[in-house]
Amino acid sequence: MLTTTDPRTGTATPTGLLPTTAEQADEIVRAARAAFAEVSTRDRAWRAGLLDALADALEADRAGLVAVADRETGLGTARLDGEVSRSAFQFRLFAEAVREGGYLEVAIDHGGPTALGPAPEIRRLLVPIGPVAVFGSSNFPFAFSVAGGDTASALAGGNAVVLKAHSSHLETSARSFAVLSAAAAAYGAPDGLLGIVYGTAAGAALVTHPLVRAVGFTGSLGGGQALMDLIAGRDEPIPFYGELSSLNPLVVTPGAAAARGEGIADGLFGSFTLGSGQFCTKPGIAFVPNGPDGDALVARLVERATDAAASVLLNARIATSFDEIRDRLVAEGAVELLARGSEAGDGAGFTAAPTVLGVDAARLTAAVAEEAFGPLIVVARYDTQAEIVAALDAVPDSLTATVHSEADEIDAVTALVAELEPRVGRLVFGGYPTGVRVSWAQHHGGPWPATNSQHTSVGVSAIRRFLRPLAYQDAPEAVLPVELRDGFRGVPRRVDGVLQLG
Amino acid sequence: MLTTTDPRTGTATPTGLLPTTAEQADEIVRAARAAFAEVSTRDRAWRAGLLDALADALEADRAGLVAVADRETGLGTARLDGEVSRSAFQFRLFAEAVREGGYLEVAIDHGGPTALGPAPEIRRLLVPIGPVAVFGSSNFPFAFSVAGGDTASALAGGNAVVLKAHSSHLETSARSFAVLSAAAAAYGAPDGLLGIVYGTAAGAALVTHPLVRAVGFTGSLGGGQALMDLIAGRDEPIPFYGELSSLNPLVVTPGAAAARGEGIADGLFGSFTLGSGQFCTKPGIAFVPNGPDGDALVARLVERATDAAASVLLNARIATSFDEIRDRLVAEGAVELLARGSEAGDGAGFTAAPTVLGVDAARLTAAVAEEAFGPLIVVARYDTQAEIVAALDAVPDSLTATVHSEADEIDAVTALVAELEPRVGRLVFGGYPTGVRVSWAQHHGGPWPATNSQHTSVGVSAIRRFLRPLAYQDAPEAVLPVELRDGFRGVPRRVDGVLQLG
Repeated sequence: MLTTTDPRTGTATPTGLLPTTAEQADEIVRAARAAFAEVSTRDRAWRAGLLDALADALEADRAGLVAVADRETGLGTARLDGEVSRSAFQFRLFAEAVREGGYLEVAIDHGGPTALGPAPEIRRLLVPIGPVAVFGSSNFPFAFSVAGGDTASALAGGNAVVLKAHSSHLETSARSFAVLSAAAAAYGAPDGLLGIVYGTAAGAALVTHPLVRAVGFTGSLGGGQALMDLIAGRDEPIPFYGELSSLNPLVVTPGAAAARGEGIADGLFGSFTLGSGQFCTKPGIAFVPNGPDGDALVARLVERATDAAASVLLNARIATSFDEIRDRLVAEGAVELLARGSEAGDGAGFTAAPTVLGVDAARLTAAVAEEAFGPLIVVARYDTQAEIVAALDAVPDSLTATVHSEADEIDAVTALVAELEPRVGRLVFGGYPTGVRVSWAQHHGGPWPATNSQHTSVGVSAIRRFLRPLAYQDAPEAVLPVELRDGFRGVPRRVDGVLQLG
Repeated sequence: MLTTTDPRTGTATPTGLLPTTAEQADEIVRAARAAFAEVSTRDRAWRAGLLDALADALEADRAGLVAVADRETGLGTARLDGEVSRSAFQFRLFAEAVREGGYLEVAIDHGGPTALGPAPEIRRLLVPIGPVAVFGSSNFPFAFSVAGGDTASALAGGNAVVLKAHSSHLETSARSFAVLSAAAAAYGAPDGLLGIVYGTAAGAALVTHPLVRAVGFTGSLGGGQALMDLIAGRDEPIPFYGELSSLNPLVVTPGAAAARGEGIADGLFGSFTLGSGQFCTKPGIAFVPNGPDGDALVARLVERATDAAASVLLNARIATSFDEIRDRLVAEGAVELLARGSEAGDGAGFTAAPTVLGVDAARLTAAVAEEAFGPLIVVARYDTQAEIVAALDAVPDSLTATVHSEADEIDAVTALVAELEPRVGRLVFGGYPTGVRVSWAQHHGGPWPATNSQHTSVGVSAIRRFLRPLAYQDAPEAVLPVELRDGFRGVPRRVDGVLQLG
C-alpha cells in the first residue's frame, strides 16, 4: 500500500491506495481512448460547459481539498486556498477560450486561379490528438497537478487525460480526481475521459503506452530526462512537454539599488522564500552592484533571512538535496554564507532555513549557478554591467529574468535586455518572477533546461500543445466541422489570407 | 572530391565540391549565429524585402537552375521550371505573411484587478530561435531543398539557415545557394545568414552543433531516425521537424466507380506516376470496390500502366529499393502483379516501370502497406466499407487520405471520414493528393510515421516551427518590440482576450 508523509512531522501513514498495475494502466488508457473518440463528436459549447463544471466542483470542495493538501504538503491553508481559486480560474479561462474559438486557428483558402495555376480549396483547423498523460508536480498540488493547467488545457483542446499522481500528495491527488471525475460524470462526460494512476511504474507504463499521444510534465530535470528516455524508446515518438528547471536571474541596477534598495531586499526576500522557495520561478541568483547602495540592500536581505525561521519543505528528497547543495557550496569555498535563518528546533519533519549566499559576479561558476529547490538565493556582486553579461554564460537558460532599474538607465537596460532575451521565456521589470499570471498573453516556458519545448504551460496558448492541424481539400460541406463551413461566423478565421473576427 | 551522377545514364562526374570538414561546419554555424544576432535587430519590412529579393534572384537564374537540376535529377525541364516558380512563390508568400504580422501571435493583457487579485501587465509575441539546419530532400531539388519551404519559413521567422546539400543534386544545391546568398548579400544581409555544408559527416556535425537550434528535414524514415538519434545524444535537445514517410490511402466508393471509374483510373495513373512516383504524397494504395465498375476502373489503370514506359528515378538507392520491394511482394505471393510497364531498353541509368499490384482488402498486411518510393500502386479490392476500415489498421498513418465519392453517398462518406481523420493531416475529396497547394491554410504533416511533429512544412504556418514565445511583464515601453507597444496597430493582436485586426 502507498503511504503519505506529513512533511511537518516526517510521519508516514497508509493511504489505502495501491500502486496501479501495468494491466490497470492499460485499461485506464484504453478507456481514455474510447472516451476521447466519443467526446470528439461533441461541440465546443459542450466542452466549455464541462470546464466550467470542473471549476465549480473544485470550489465546492474547497475546504476538504485544502485540508488534505495542507496535511500532505505543509504549504499552509492560505496559499492552498488561493491555489484552488487559481485552478478554478484556469478551467474557466480555458472555457472562455474554447467558446471564443480563436485557438482553432481556422484558415480557409478558396479554390481558383493562382500564380501557380488553378488551386484546390483548402480549409484547416486544429484538432485534438488523443489521450494525454499529465504528471503532477510536487510544489503546486492543485495548479500544476491533477486539477492543474495541463489537465485543463488538454481537456479544453478536446483530449482525454490520464493523470500520474505525485507521490508527495497522493491523497490530494485522489480527492482532486474524485471531485473532477464526479463532476465530469454528472455533466455527462463519458467514463474514462479522466483517469489516474499511482506509482512510478504506472507512470512509466503511461508514457510508453501506444495510445498515449502526448505527455505534460512539470518537475525536476532528472525526472523529465528519465521520461524523455522512455519516450525515445517508443516505436512512435510522441511530444513531451516538460517544464524542468530554472534559476531565474534577477538584476538590480545601480540606480535601483540607490533609489529603493531596501524595498527590493524585502521583495526579494518574499519572492525567494515564497512557498519555502519551492517555485520553479524562484529568483535563484540576484546581481547586486558593489558599493554602499548594494551593501545596504544585501544587509537588509541578510537581516530578513537571519531573522526568519525555517519553513517546511515538501518531502525528504527536496530537504536532503537542499542541505547537500548549500553545504557543498559553502564547504568548497565557492560562496560565502551571508545568512542562514534559525533551523527548526525539534528536528522533526522536512525543513529549511532561509539562506543567502554571496559570490563575486566575476567568479560565478556553473556549479554555483545550480538550482537549489528551497529558500536559498545567491547574491552576485558586480562592478560593471559587462560583468553581469559575462556571468550570465554560467547561468542556465531560465523561465524568467528580472530587471530592477530606474527610468534614467534605459540605455543600459536596453543593452541588458538584449542579452537576457535569448536566455529566457519571460522578462519581468520592477517585480518578482514568482507570480505567474494566468491569462491570454502569458508565457511560462523557456530555452533548455527551463523547458524542452517552444510552448507555454500556463495561459490560454497552452492548448496548442495538445492539438494538431487537419486540412480538408475540396470537401463536401457535410463532412466539414461547422467552424470550417462558409456560412459560419462564430470564430476568428483567416480567409484567403485575410484575418476576420468571429 | 564529391561526384554527381546523371540518373539517366548512371555516369558519375566530379563536382569540384569537397565534403565540408567538421571545422568548416563549425565556422559556418558560428557565422550563422553571428548573422542571426545581427538580423534580429532589423524589422519585419527588411526581412520581407529579403524574401522578395531571394524570389527575384531564383527566377532570374531560372534557366541555369533548371538545366543543372535536370541533369542531376532527370525530373524534366517542365516540372523543374514549375518547381522554380513554386519556390519563388513560396518566398513571396512568406514575405506577405511577415508584412501582415499575424504569425507573431501578439497578445497583450493589461495589468489591473482580476478575480485572483491585482495582476501585472503581460505582453507576448513569438521570436526567432537561432540558426536552423535544413536538410534538402532528393525529390524536390528546389521546393524542398536549398531554395525550399524550410529555408523560406526559417528566414521568414528571423532565423539564420545552414543547409545540408542533398547528395543527389549537389550542383543544383551549390547553384541555388550561390544565387540565394548573392541576392542576400546584395540586399544587405550579413555574411553567414545562409550557409551550406556538403557530405553526411557535415550533416551530423550540424544537428549535433550546440548553436543549431532546430532541424528541418524532408526525407526517408530511416534518414530521419538517424538524425533523431543524433539529436537524442545532444546535451540540449532541439526540435526536429521531419517529414518522413507516407502511403496516402485513396478510397473509391461504389458510386464513384460507377459514375466515373475510367476518369479516376486516369487521374490515379497520373498521380502515382507523377515525378516517377517520387512524391511523399503519392497515393500508394487505392481501395476499389469489387464488381464490374471496379473491374473497369482497374482494367483502365492496368492498361495505362502497361502501355507506359519506364521513367527515370533520382538515384541508385531509390531504384534498388523500388525493385526490391516490388519483387519481394510478388515473390511472397502477398500481391498479384497486375501491370508492369515496359522497362528501359538499355539498362543504363536508374529507371522504374509503372507497376500496379493487386490485393484483397481483407488480406491487406502491413508488409504490403509499405511505402515504395517510385511509380508503384497497390489496388486493394473490397466488398464493404467495413473491410476498408479494418484494412486501414494495416496502413501507416499518412500525410493524406483521399476519397472519391458521389453526392448521394454522403452518410457512408461521413462515417469513412471519421475513420480517416485521426490517421492523416489532409483529407482530399474528388482529387489527388500529389499537388500540395502553397497557401495560408495548407497543412502538410500528419501523425507518425508521416511526420514526428504537430506542425506543417508547407504553407504560411510552417513559420511557427522556428519561433518561440517571449513575454514581457510590466516592461518600460522603450525595451518592447514595436509590435507590443500600445500605440501600434500594424499587426493583428489579442488585447485583454479580444482579437483585434491589424
